[in-house]
Amino acid sequence: MKATVYHGARDVRLESVPDPVLREPGDAIVRVVRAAICGSDLWFYRGVTHWTPGDRTGHEFVGVVEEVGKSVRSLRPGDYVIAPFVSSDGTCEFCAIGLQTSCVHMTNWGDDANGAQAEAVRVPYADGTLVKMAPGMADEPGMLASAAALCDVMATGHHGALTAGTKRGGTVAIVGDGAVGLCGVLYAAKVLGADRVIAIGHNQERLAMARDFGATQTYNSHDEGVAEAVLELTKGGCAAVVEAVGNQESMDLAVTIARPGGTVSFVGVPHNVKQVPLRPIFLKNLSLHGAIAPARAYIEPLMQHVLDRSIDPSRVFDLKLPLDGVAEGYAAMDQRRAIKVLLEL
Amino acid sequence: MKATVYHGARDVRLESVPDPVLREPGDAIVRVVRAAICGSDLWFYRGVTHWTPGDRTGHEFVGVVEEVGKSVRSLRPGDYVIAPFVSSDGTCEFCAIGLQTSCVHMTNWGDDANGAQAEAVRVPYADGTLVKMAPGMADEPGMLASAAALCDVMATGHHGALTAGTKRGGTVAIVGDGAVGLCGVLYAAKVLGADRVIAIGHNQERLAMARDFGATQTYNSHDEGVAEAVLELTKGGCAAVVEAVGNQESMDLAVTIARPGGTVSFVGVPHNVKQVPLRPIFLKNLSLHGAIAPARAYIEPLMQHVLDRSIDPSRVFDLKLPLDGVAEGYAAMDQRRAIKVLLEL
Repeated sequence: MKATVYHGARDVRLESVPDPVLREPGDAIVRVVRAAICGSDLWFYRGVTHWTPGDRTGHEFVGVVEEVGKSVRSLRPGDYVIAPFVSSDGTCEFCAIGLQTSCVHMTNWGDDANGAQAEAVRVPYADGTLVKMAPGMADEPGMLASAAALCDVMATGHHGALTAGTKRGGTVAIVGDGAVGLCGVLYAAKVLGADRVIAIGHNQERLAMARDFGATQTYNSHDEGVAEAVLELTKGGCAAVVEAVGNQESMDLAVTIARPGGTVSFVGVPHNVKQVPLRPIFLKNLSLHGAIAPARAYIEPLMQHVLDRSIDPSRVFDLKLPLDGVAEGYAAMDQRRAIKVLLEL
Repeated sequence: MKATVYHGARDVRLESVPDPVLREPGDAIVRVVRAAICGSDLWFYRGVTHWTPGDRTGHEFVGVVEEVGKSVRSLRPGDYVIAPFVSSDGTCEFCAIGLQTSCVHMTNWGDDANGAQAEAVRVPYADGTLVKMAPGMADEPGMLASAAALCDVMATGHHGALTAGTKRGGTVAIVGDGAVGLCGVLYAAKVLGADRVIAIGHNQERLAMARDFGATQTYNSHDEGVAEAVLELTKGGCAAVVEAVGNQESMDLAVTIARPGGTVSFVGVPHNVKQVPLRPIFLKNLSLHGAIAPARAYIEPLMQHVLDRSIDPSRVFDLKLPLDGVAEGYAAMDQRRAIKVLLEL
């Protein structure tokens, strides 16, 4: 089959590799129909994190079950499935409380020659990991793209808004206008019912999409006085803040605009935060919540919101390419020509 | 009157200063009967934070009301009162939710020539700030010392245990065997009813006091493998962790022993934390809670626990000196010859 292979900074290639095979009785083989490129993929693409040449890439995919191991109970060949961005056994104490990212058997898709920007993937703990799509969903226009958004980016925006403590009728600020930030806006506005959704970014088109998604105020972070403006608007800060960028400026801004007693949820591994502003976190009694999303816990409810049209996260995919356009997809995201890339197989 | 004045690193002196006078209608003048030296006073004493020579010191005191301004309603001369470590108006939105440290009129005692290691203090917003002691409490042996512990150290240990999410029957780990850490142990064990209270420090006598206070396990942080031992004991970490030291090692340890989905509350301004371990905080979905204690919200319920003898926080004062021994008190705490010093007037 074809799969995307990392060769070095800004060098990923679609190559022929052996087909995946069942290894454990709980495995499934899934033929990929949609895969996505994640903002977090840019860390290794840009050489910020160090990968080994030969590593497989990609952790977001939707597909069709081709084959299942002997112990798989809930899936059979032909089922359309959505995969969260890590696998999980579905039975351990952490899976039981909806924290599948801490599953005792958690694995990343990139591990073990098993990337998702490929024609097929071996899925460990298939019963625990995969979510079956609702009947007929795959045939509805746009639904495969929305499903692909649930693997990570929509689940992550949702987790950020939720763990920041966004309340119905309340205020939430979302720092970052990437796909995750936009999904956070969408969920906070359309599902959680926040009355005031403040989006902060520095790309006018993305901020326009944030307004479409329900942001009531948008600010360009490159302008002077954004923090002061938010503090004045909210008369002292936001009880719920999502930090969806991961650099020093965004972390500082998120903490500055948080209201005493509030929460700042950060939804990505920060790579460029040298100094967490502990003093204001202490003096304002803030919670700084590290929020890798247990996507597996959220895919089913989010799928219902997609099906009843309360949310349409497929809009974050503003560039769609065939699998053999994967290198161009990375380049487009790296150069900020695209918010997020969908690979259609 | 006599008051303690900062002159430079390791140089505080008891000096004659003008008596405090009422300035605002909401003020009260309180004659101090007990004052304490705080672990956080050591930051300026050691020159880590920079104070201006002439600044007054001290923020923990218990006393008798001598005089009240025209608008003071709840207090009159002769009342015994306990002061939280900052003043608060008692009426703003943050006071209303028990977050008096974020009061819009909050002031520190050290500000404006108004330190508490002195014979008298001017108290702004006296109705909002001061808590009247229960009738007869001041006359009971040891109760003034316990009351003095409620100003800060007991309230802070309590706030740490509470905001870390300590549960009845659950597990909490407290990193730090100073007065705050010990008070956290006491509250978690005796009031919150945690079944497993893990205390980590590096002073055998203090760890012995932690066991007296209800710690079920104690570890010496200078030993090898403490984190591994706690992770093994708890089968994967503690849902509630209090970080009561404020340096890099203690922050790293607190995060390492936290269970996925758990909370680490830090109860002091960290002065020696260069790098917050954001990656494990993210991957384990931890909350890092900055926890300056709104002592004012806690003094009344804590006073009840003192009166019914569920807790005896006076035991953290292992050195008692007259006010003119204040310089020796600082030296004793600096040199770790005393856990905490009580000044008796």
